[in-house]
Amino acid sequence: MKEVLGDIERWRARGDRIALATVVATRKSAPRPIGSKLAISASGEFAGSVSGGCVESDVYDHACRILEGDAPQLLSYGISDDQAFTVGLPCGGEIDVFVEEVPNTLVDRLVGVVERQERAVLFTVVEGESIGRELLVLEDGEQVGEGLSEASDQTHELLRGGRSQLLSLGDGTKVFAEVFGPPPRLFVYGAVDTGEALCRAAKAIGWRTILADARAKFATPERIPSADELIVGWPEEALERVRPDYQTAVVVLTHDDKFDVPAIKGALDTDAFYVGALGSRRNQALRRERLLEVGVPAAELERIFGPCGLDVGADSPAETALSILGEILAVRARRDGGSLRHAKGRIHVEEAQPA
Amino acid sequence: MKEVLGDIERWRARGDRIALATVVATRKSAPRPIGSKLAISASGEFAGSVSGGCVESDVYDHACRILEGDAPQLLSYGISDDQAFTVGLPCGGEIDVFVEEVPNTLVDRLVGVVERQERAVLFTVVEGESIGRELLVLEDGEQVGEGLSEASDQTHELLRGGRSQLLSLGDGTKVFAEVFGPPPRLFVYGAVDTGEALCRAAKAIGWRTILADARAKFATPERIPSADELIVGWPEEALERVRPDYQTAVVVLTHDDKFDVPAIKGALDTDAFYVGALGSRRNQALRRERLLEVGVPAAELERIFGPCGLDVGADSPAETALSILGEILAVRARRDGGSLRHAKGRIHVEEAQPA
Repeated sequence: MKEVLGDIERWRARGDRIALATVVATRKSAPRPIGSKLAISASGEFAGSVSGGCVESDVYDHACRILEGDAPQLLSYGISDDQAFTVGLPCGGEIDVFVEEVPNTLVDRLVGVVERQERAVLFTVVEGESIGRELLVLEDGEQVGEGLSEASDQTHELLRGGRSQLLSLGDGTKVFAEVFGPPPRLFVYGAVDTGEALCRAAKAIGWRTILADARAKFATPERIPSADELIVGWPEEALERVRPDYQTAVVVLTHDDKFDVPAIKGALDTDAFYVGALGSRRNQALRRERLLEVGVPAAELERIFGPCGLDVGADSPAETALSILGEILAVRARRDGGSLRHAKGRIHVEEAQPA
Repeated sequence: MKEVLGDIERWRARGDRIALATVVATRKSAPRPIGSKLAISASGEFAGSVSGGCVESDVYDHACRILEGDAPQLLSYGISDDQAFTVGLPCGGEIDVFVEEVPNTLVDRLVGVVERQERAVLFTVVEGESIGRELLVLEDGEQVGEGLSEASDQTHELLRGGRSQLLSLGDGTKVFAEVFGPPPRLFVYGAVDTGEALCRAAKAIGWRTILADARAKFATPERIPSADELIVGWPEEALERVRPDYQTAVVVLTHDDKFDVPAIKGALDTDAFYVGALGSRRNQALRRERLLEVGVPAAELERIFGPCGLDVGADSPAETALSILGEILAVRARRDGGSLRHAKGRIHVEEAQPA
């Protein structure tokens, strides 16, 4: 959405009505990911892309007719190998694109959501009787549009998981739930090698990384180049500044109770969706005692992932980082790690069907 | 070992005897990883490091006495927080360092092993009656030294796992098994985004990366900057060039049976320790049929990890790469990739005890 914002604002400023085409599902290789947008103005301009050129022309034609009064439409395209080839994709797949005219009030609010990185879910009926109905729900409950309560009941869970996806409602209606918001955050306490490796791996998947250590000598950009933000401070100060929320993973790496205990205690006082700590099983047990002593309720200790990480036999800092980040992703997606070929559930989130 | 080779060869050339100090175990934070070496010549020179400066002076003194006739020794050091601080480590841990004089014949062969990246395991008794006994076993069975058959029976498994570690023999003898050889290799077929992301992640853990695709337009350094080697060729040609062995993971990513089927079939004809392929469960089933049709024995199909990756809810290419590389590490270490806090076994390989 961000890439078409400038054009949309320009068109809106002169009073143009606007159609949006959005990739709502992909199968096999797709040129552009779910959520990719082509915006079309009533005066015939366009911005963005849903397929890097394979199907834009056809989508554009549909959008023009919709701006002239046609009903919104869900279009499915097979990307042939030849088409894929011309856009630099080794082989083709299939994409579903929903095209609709978006009401001005909704466009205006959406622009604000994207510009200010507000957390919100836009529900759009893409198949079913009320095709084209839309509802924008913000994190604080603010709504633009109405209805769709069966879908909007899932707002919090969708914001938590952070993935745009197609929902199937009880009556067969298909709703595209598009999740907006800032990237998840990783907060690491401990300027050790594994901390740098963890920040590096998290940046590679698009997360914002913050690392803190009480010792200015260690929390330096030279030692920790992959932290978007470096904080020199004790755990309490650092947590106060970072304020972990339900989109923040906290990993405590110092191996030293002087830092680990207040860092874990502080993290458990937040909504952090993941609180992980290194250490052998013996040290985990000792640390639990320390945490109980400083007043952490026993039930809260269950939130600690310790020893943290997936059981992949990690050895070096980079391998340990991969193991921990894998567990963080799994926890966020409510998966349990383990080989996919033995897993019973879905593979990709975009194939999700709510229960 | 590589970092001290030049000095060792120089000392050997003038006939000096040589002592080697090796980190054989670490607990909590350690300044240098397992296998790190300090080499000391009989004329008093030294090279390398076992702790970045914390304990080198004491190790050096022991090495000098050993070169004067003292018995080899296993030394344990606690790295205090203050010492750790001075070497840039946020907190201290413990390291065990074994110091010994290494016989000339063994030094000579070891130099060759390291220079030519030969696969070999050096077994050294670090605790027990025969302390200081050494046996070098190469992949092809060549041996320098004798005895230690209970340990050397594990040579193949140690080479496969690729981790230096302490072994405990039945009589309580402790043997440090140091594994030498080139880094593991990742071979990806399919110049797609996930292929680049996978090469990038594998390079971050020190692996050698090779990617192949039949289409020259895709297998370019611009699209796949993280491949150490790019091959333009059909699966059969590429596999013939790469010759995957038991230290090679093969991942097939094209989504197209025209490439996937011969790539998987060819990979199954090798000793590759991992053969993974993308695709939904339905496509996996269809592909199995195709593989049976082209003559792959049913039992061999069990070697395929498909859908490949750990169940972490991966979505983007970078997340999918992390999920696949996590599974590759787990398979190599014979772990199952679930959360460590629920795992019953050991966390780090260096704490390994053979059965």
